[in-house]
Amino acid sequence: MLKTRLTERLKLRHPIISAPMAFAAGGRLAATVSAAGGLGLIGGGYGDADWINEEFRAAGNQRVGCGFITWSLRKQPALLDLVLSKKPAAILLSFDDPAPLANRIKERGITLICQIQTRRDAERALACGADVIVAQGSEAGGHGEKRGTFGLVPEVADLIAKENPDTLLCAAGGIGDGRGLAAALMLGADGVLIGSRLWASKEANVSDRMHAAALAATGDNTIRSQVMDLARKLDWPPRYTARVLKNRFIERWHGREQELLTVADQEAAKYRKAWADGDPEESNTFVGEVVGLIHDIEPASNIIERIVREAEELLQLKSKQLEQGQ
Amino acid sequence: MLKTRLTERLKLRHPIISAPMAFAAGGRLAATVSAAGGLGLIGGGYGDADWINEEFRAAGNQRVGCGFITWSLRKQPALLDLVLSKKPAAILLSFDDPAPLANRIKERGITLICQIQTRRDAERALACGADVIVAQGSEAGGHGEKRGTFGLVPEVADLIAKENPDTLLCAAGGIGDGRGLAAALMLGADGVLIGSRLWASKEANVSDRMHAAALAATGDNTIRSQVMDLARKLDWPPRYTARVLKNRFIERWHGREQELLTVADQEAAKYRKAWADGDPEESNTFVGEVVGLIHDIEPASNIIERIVREAEELLQLKSKQLEQGQ
Repeated sequence: MLKTRLTERLKLRHPIISAPMAFAAGGRLAATVSAAGGLGLIGGGYGDADWINEEFRAAGNQRVGCGFITWSLRKQPALLDLVLSKKPAAILLSFDDPAPLANRIKERGITLICQIQTRRDAERALACGADVIVAQGSEAGGHGEKRGTFGLVPEVADLIAKENPDTLLCAAGGIGDGRGLAAALMLGADGVLIGSRLWASKEANVSDRMHAAALAATGDNTIRSQVMDLARKLDWPPRYTARVLKNRFIERWHGREQELLTVADQEAAKYRKAWADGDPEESNTFVGEVVGLIHDIEPASNIIERIVREAEELLQLKSKQLEQGQ
Repeated sequence: MLKTRLTERLKLRHPIISAPMAFAAGGRLAATVSAAGGLGLIGGGYGDADWINEEFRAAGNQRVGCGFITWSLRKQPALLDLVLSKKPAAILLSFDDPAPLANRIKERGITLICQIQTRRDAERALACGADVIVAQGSEAGGHGEKRGTFGLVPEVADLIAKENPDTLLCAAGGIGDGRGLAAALMLGADGVLIGSRLWASKEANVSDRMHAAALAATGDNTIRSQVMDLARKLDWPPRYTARVLKNRFIERWHGREQELLTVADQEAAKYRKAWADGDPEESNTFVGEVVGLIHDIEPASNIIERIVREAEELLQLKSKQLEQGQ
């Protein structure tokens, strides 16, 4: 058992939260993560009430939470009421200013998790009264920003210590095994949020072909880009890009953004069809640099248990080596 | 004492190497780091025989090494002979393929350190017989690439374990205190290479104004760019950018690279003058995201000692907490 402020405060067995990956993180994955001792989050994504209802049903009686893309949720505030009515274990907001949605979550007594990408974002999350701040580095799969996990986590830890020490901190971006969990704890985090490694689980809603593409890739094979959002005509604020596997689609459009905009209507239709087909070449496989550490698709419970066991062993081993060195 | 394979093999007291920062890392800084128990490296940079001779003299009797920009050194191979004749403790090569310079270092029995930025680079370094691989993440100050420290280090550790387990591994990029050292050890590194934190030392060749600019900055205030290399007419391969503090120069030129090329002659003269003046607005302050953790300019020996003490305390504390949790 690795006890941290996160496990105590959120009443978890393990200091692990699963990322609310749009599309991939449904009720089944979230419930499995919670049953394994972590906190599972359903990926509210761009917001579809029917999908969210269905996935909460799929989670059954497990205590799960839900994550949203903040700028998208602001356009459909009724979705927040829908999820709040389900008494989720937590709500995560990421990408753009969480105020004033934050107040509506806090006043219902629901745990508010704010995922941030910069120190400036962390200041805003603290001002909103976030219970947990997830510092997400650029290594992460899917949407994010430029700062790296290794420097962002301790800088936000120092900010929290100064401004509001009760706030919990999780690291995200690059965490795929026990080494990553142990390192995150050393950097000052109380736990981790894991995306790609759980995306590569049997319970994730991911096509076999995309899973196969990820298993074949190294960390060098990912890239941050905006072309998938331009092709899907999604209104992402320009500061955010998404990390995906390089593929034919990226080769064709990355660096030709202006040209893509002129044919976005056709491309959107083609992209959506390829996505529905689970095509890893003509749509995108949303994974982080940690893909280079992933060599199999496993049950999520095995993944969680192994990560925790590895981290425990590492922490014990290093402290033993340290004592022998003295 | 933190004993690792690096301290044993390189006969160091602490698992810390100082980055061979061009211009900033002279003989005084390198000698201070070595005297403090780490391995100090002189920054051979773009290659100036007089400067290198002078800095090796300044290092006195301390056992120091030297680092080079590989693509630049290939153009002036005599510099390598010059440094080899000084029997350096190690030679570090970074940026572009280390072969065939590597052979000339190896055959003299000198420790070869290859700094790499991708998994692919690490494969090349292993093929060259590198004694130490430094996995440098995008967080780092100065030149580098896109992959983040957090995912790159364990992926290279796995590659080393598979291909040539005797090779040592250091992490670089984002390491500014004991949290970073402890985290790097957890990720599978045998030690760390530290740049920015030692750039911010009394022994570094850095203007007071640049030091002041760094102390005022957070990690959000850095950016990777190529404009300083275009303005200096330096022939960097396009895959490499440099992380610097955002300033007036960056604001004026970043994103306007083509225009800059048309006025590069004038700009080069202006840039060199600003650089000679230590001007942090019209030339560049080369620091990494870890600048957000730096709040004072200290003697390098204090920095080294504190980093090691913090890391030891953290490792002991976490293992104690872990046992209490069980």
